[in-house]
Amino acid sequence: MSAYGQGVSPLLVQFRAGSSGGWRVTGMKVLAGDSLEPAERIGVVVGGELPAAPNAAWSLKGTVSNLRYTTGTEARQLGEKGAGLGRPEARLAALIPIRKSAAWWSLPQDRRREIYEERSRHTTIGLEYLPAISRRLHHSRDLGEPFDFLTWFEFAPEHEPMFDDLLARLRSREEWDYVDREVDIRLTLEPELQ
Amino acid sequence: MSAYGQGVSPLLVQFRAGSSGGWRVTGMKVLAGDSLEPAERIGVVVGGELPAAPNAAWSLKGTVSNLRYTTGTEARQLGEKGAGLGRPEARLAALIPIRKSAAWWSLPQDRRREIYEERSRHTTIGLEYLPAISRRLHHSRDLGEPFDFLTWFEFAPEHEPMFDDLLARLRSREEWDYVDREVDIRLTLEPELQ
Repeated sequence: MSAYGQGVSPLLVQFRAGSSGGWRVTGMKVLAGDSLEPAERIGVVVGGELPAAPNAAWSLKGTVSNLRYTTGTEARQLGEKGAGLGRPEARLAALIPIRKSAAWWSLPQDRRREIYEERSRHTTIGLEYLPAISRRLHHSRDLGEPFDFLTWFEFAPEHEPMFDDLLARLRSREEWDYVDREVDIRLTLEPELQ
Repeated sequence: MSAYGQGVSPLLVQFRAGSSGGWRVTGMKVLAGDSLEPAERIGVVVGGELPAAPNAAWSLKGTVSNLRYTTGTEARQLGEKGAGLGRPEARLAALIPIRKSAAWWSLPQDRRREIYEERSRHTTIGLEYLPAISRRLHHSRDLGEPFDFLTWFEFAPEHEPMFDDLLARLRSREEWDYVDREVDIRLTLEPELQ
């Protein structure tokens, strides 16, 4: 499976916020809609779901699933340029849960694709930041979750300004008119003794 | 929300097979892959999920969610020609759980769309059978279910041969080369006293 979700079997991933977990929260900013409860740390559970921890602030889950808008050509470019998760130098991460509006979801596939790529250049812009910024998208909407997507990014500390630039460009485009809830959570890898 | 899944919020639907439920099973045929345990009846739980009944044979769930391949033009045609579920004359139903292969899911969006419609004419063929054959599609793959889709059809008894014709045409197309599990369950509405 590539980092772009072209897996053959959906992978469930859970993000648990609370007092434990391998990633320390260094910042949380609300871009749209309601915030999430502040937390010290986030732990990532890949391939399953753990029951709520006694001190959990919140828990979000999503599946790494098939591509939804990406064409064959784009997928090939992403695969060629991109690096996976877990690179040793990528000590910073961002978890950005996003919800899109009812207006977005009621659009047919061709209209959503047109706004996503032909008008907002989501994939084209993202490609410019590879391989420095790794990304994995988790789909949450069909799971009855409060967000539609959980996007996870990993990058080296020196690439954080580049990452901020990527976000500013994406957020300035038409696609973002349809985002009605967005929280930007920044993290530092800080393995714990458990 | 239309019967074609263009809803603004995903709707969870559970199909419970066992000794109770408003639909009596009149036939079950395996087209590909493993069968399902035989059952007398199927009950449909809309908008949630009930715990397994003591005599349940199996339970499958899926969400009525956003359109995945349908264009705006196609969605309009489907909406104009189609009738919803629950028509008084539609006393027969079919529940057809389907799983597609890893080869299908690893294709990018444009290739899947091309096979689905430009080459296999899934929507075009379905349109010919409206409004006689109502359909609702439930997405299961991201929920970690054994099938990728649960398709539910409703029709009047005199339209069952027409429904069989629809299925034969869809199954003869290239899209069906990617179906690796399919069970065709026929049902009659037979409300129970509970």
